[in-house]
Amino acid sequence: MITAREVIQKKRDRGTLTQEEIASFVRGYMASEIADYQAAAWLMAVYLNGMTPDETKTLTREMRDSGTVLDLSSIRGMKIDKHSTGGVGDKTSMMVAPIAAACGVAVPMITGRALGHTGGTLDKLESIPGFNARPSPAKIVEILSSAGAVIMGQTDDLAPADKRIYALRDVTSTVESIPLITASILSKKLAEGIDGLVMDVKTGSGAFMPTLKLATALARSIVDVCRAMKTKIVVLITDMEQPLGRAIGNALEIRECIEFLNGRTPEDLETVTIALAAHMIRLGGQARSINHASKLAYEAVSRGEAARRFRQIISAQGGDERVMDNPDLLPRAAQIQDFRAKANGFLVRCDAKLLGLASNTLGAGRNRVEERIDPAVGLYLEKKLSDRVVKGDVLCRIHWNDEHRLASALPLIESAFEVKTSRPKGRPLIHAILKG
Amino acid sequence: MITAREVIQKKRDRGTLTQEEIASFVRGYMASEIADYQAAAWLMAVYLNGMTPDETKTLTREMRDSGTVLDLSSIRGMKIDKHSTGGVGDKTSMMVAPIAAACGVAVPMITGRALGHTGGTLDKLESIPGFNARPSPAKIVEILSSAGAVIMGQTDDLAPADKRIYALRDVTSTVESIPLITASILSKKLAEGIDGLVMDVKTGSGAFMPTLKLATALARSIVDVCRAMKTKIVVLITDMEQPLGRAIGNALEIRECIEFLNGRTPEDLETVTIALAAHMIRLGGQARSINHASKLAYEAVSRGEAARRFRQIISAQGGDERVMDNPDLLPRAAQIQDFRAKANGFLVRCDAKLLGLASNTLGAGRNRVEERIDPAVGLYLEKKLSDRVVKGDVLCRIHWNDEHRLASALPLIESAFEVKTSRPKGRPLIHAILKG
Repeated sequence: MITAREVIQKKRDRGTLTQEEIASFVRGYMASEIADYQAAAWLMAVYLNGMTPDETKTLTREMRDSGTVLDLSSIRGMKIDKHSTGGVGDKTSMMVAPIAAACGVAVPMITGRALGHTGGTLDKLESIPGFNARPSPAKIVEILSSAGAVIMGQTDDLAPADKRIYALRDVTSTVESIPLITASILSKKLAEGIDGLVMDVKTGSGAFMPTLKLATALARSIVDVCRAMKTKIVVLITDMEQPLGRAIGNALEIRECIEFLNGRTPEDLETVTIALAAHMIRLGGQARSINHASKLAYEAVSRGEAARRFRQIISAQGGDERVMDNPDLLPRAAQIQDFRAKANGFLVRCDAKLLGLASNTLGAGRNRVEERIDPAVGLYLEKKLSDRVVKGDVLCRIHWNDEHRLASALPLIESAFEVKTSRPKGRPLIHAILKG
Repeated sequence: MITAREVIQKKRDRGTLTQEEIASFVRGYMASEIADYQAAAWLMAVYLNGMTPDETKTLTREMRDSGTVLDLSSIRGMKIDKHSTGGVGDKTSMMVAPIAAACGVAVPMITGRALGHTGGTLDKLESIPGFNARPSPAKIVEILSSAGAVIMGQTDDLAPADKRIYALRDVTSTVESIPLITASILSKKLAEGIDGLVMDVKTGSGAFMPTLKLATALARSIVDVCRAMKTKIVVLITDMEQPLGRAIGNALEIRECIEFLNGRTPEDLETVTIALAAHMIRLGGQARSINHASKLAYEAVSRGEAARRFRQIISAQGGDERVMDNPDLLPRAAQIQDFRAKANGFLVRCDAKLLGLASNTLGAGRNRVEERIDPAVGLYLEKKLSDRVVKGDVLCRIHWNDEHRLASALPLIESAFEVKTSRPKGRPLIHAILKG
């Protein structure tokens, strides 16, 4: 009989917990034999004293097994998902899913909502009139078989331990811990019954892991656990110093996705999207090499097959597929206001976090889970980092509906941009790739 | 508006909390605006990252001010208390209170119950038939004025924050933290409205702080906070490698106290008792020097004045004062069994913790606050450390009432003693004295 006190004490004293100790703690917590305050003390001890890769693996497995693990064995081929640690303007999920599906990979994608300064794929998709993010289990299998991809919200029976532990971490300042983040992400992903995962760990001002050092540590931890859990894994560390692409805000980002799939491609968004999709295709066994996979991904877009798949996904999940031909059917803000440069030079700062906060202040995001969002509002960047700027040029267009919210967002936008006379040093879009 | 999350995060990141931050946390917790799980995460962060003397002082003050601070201004002279971190066979409270009172010091002593392997003064006193550990506030002042000392249990309105925080520390493995122990002890003591405190920090196998290094750190912390709170303080670090005196167990210890006050003095018990009482007398302004104070303490015992005061305290608190003349009126165990030496030599181990556990296993203590104790049972040591022992000599006498409990206690007693052919190096009884 292992007591909660003993497990807390051992981690407090920098000990390495056994599988039995971690299992008894997670199970005891879910059975309400261990109290929230005991879990909170333990989480702080884990935060401050860390966990070995083995401990992290056990925690991940116990959290995954706290609920249902999906059985997708009836779906042909390899099931591959992509997951991002979250960023601003990061709409790659909605493009890599149809691209990979177009190349023969099955993509059972479970995704989340906006919180803090970041956006959420679910919120973005729900800006498409009629879109249903909660298809039934039977419907999921049906959509996966027909469209090759399904994009849905988390259900209560998938890794419920993560839901409880995450809520507790949120109010006890124990969020930013590599082992706890690893277990949180992977317990949910591994409960999807996937064969492989492409992980996008963001780094830069708008990322959860602002420094490359932290991002690399998280990437390594994710690779270690996936390897131990016998799940194929590739982690790309990608840049989030400035927003990805040009659109920030729910309907605005869907519009950008549609434009991308229809052939209009903002440079950085294309690079990251194709890289992620190619790794999914490669992990899914549909290409001989990563170069081959990239070629397949490009072709899926240029042939219009990815757009066709996205249309199929939207339609199968109850959304109005006509948005693919006429994006004006998406919610649109009542007002658009230009934000202009006050000097000549180069754009040296286009801060992802501040622009994410500004967009969410306009109504695109939420501070509490129960808040409603405004799908129409957001920002559209006319200039990006290193671009030459002339005084009076539009830096971004503000799509807004509420005057008070606009007034609150403006100082954030103001401080997000900086123009200087010398061109800044470029940052790589993809900082590193780690494989399992 | 300081949020709980911010305060947790700052301590998590090794920051130094401001007075406002600590105040808002303790007050928020007592007002139930801050949840147990947030307090638990914070306590673990404090445990692992520590607190400065200033933070400890603020925490102590906030915990003291969470309830009533006694007003004893109607009592003449200086109010001095003595407190011990707890040990085995430590019955000094019941002797130093009447000795100091006999020398003109007012002693408003609040004391606790047995928990773990240690005994509790309240439990010991309640083995005296009729003794009431909860006199009314009016009665407290009356007893203090007449007998000069009162010994009572903690009330709900004295430092209630300590009660809640201690209960939480107990179940979250955050007990053994110098700043948290300091604040816990001193918040209660300073709420008594005392002018000075003599603190007995135990060190050795039977102590809360087993090493001299830890005991010294706690002593320093206590001195620092008392100095900052303008309360006179002397800390004695005394030995708890073996039990203090010869009796362990409630009624057995009361009997030893009565014998002491009536003139029969086991060596180590006398040394520690007189030292503590002398420092109380000195702090209370009743002696010119510590040597003078010691002389007064000895005389209070030899003249019978201390015994007379103890009789007064017992009587005023409803107890049967006849136990002073006839200790056989105290509860007595049905059976006494001798535990004998198996070899010739010297007693090199007489382990306080194991003997404390053995006594509590016989029924003298409790594992949970709600358990009842058996006042009659315990141990009486016939040999102490360094004593010469002949095979077959009685090492201790076991006073027992329950066969199953006896069976559980015997292996503990067995492993508590060790006889070797060479005489062990002696340990000092008083390791150090620190003054405020």
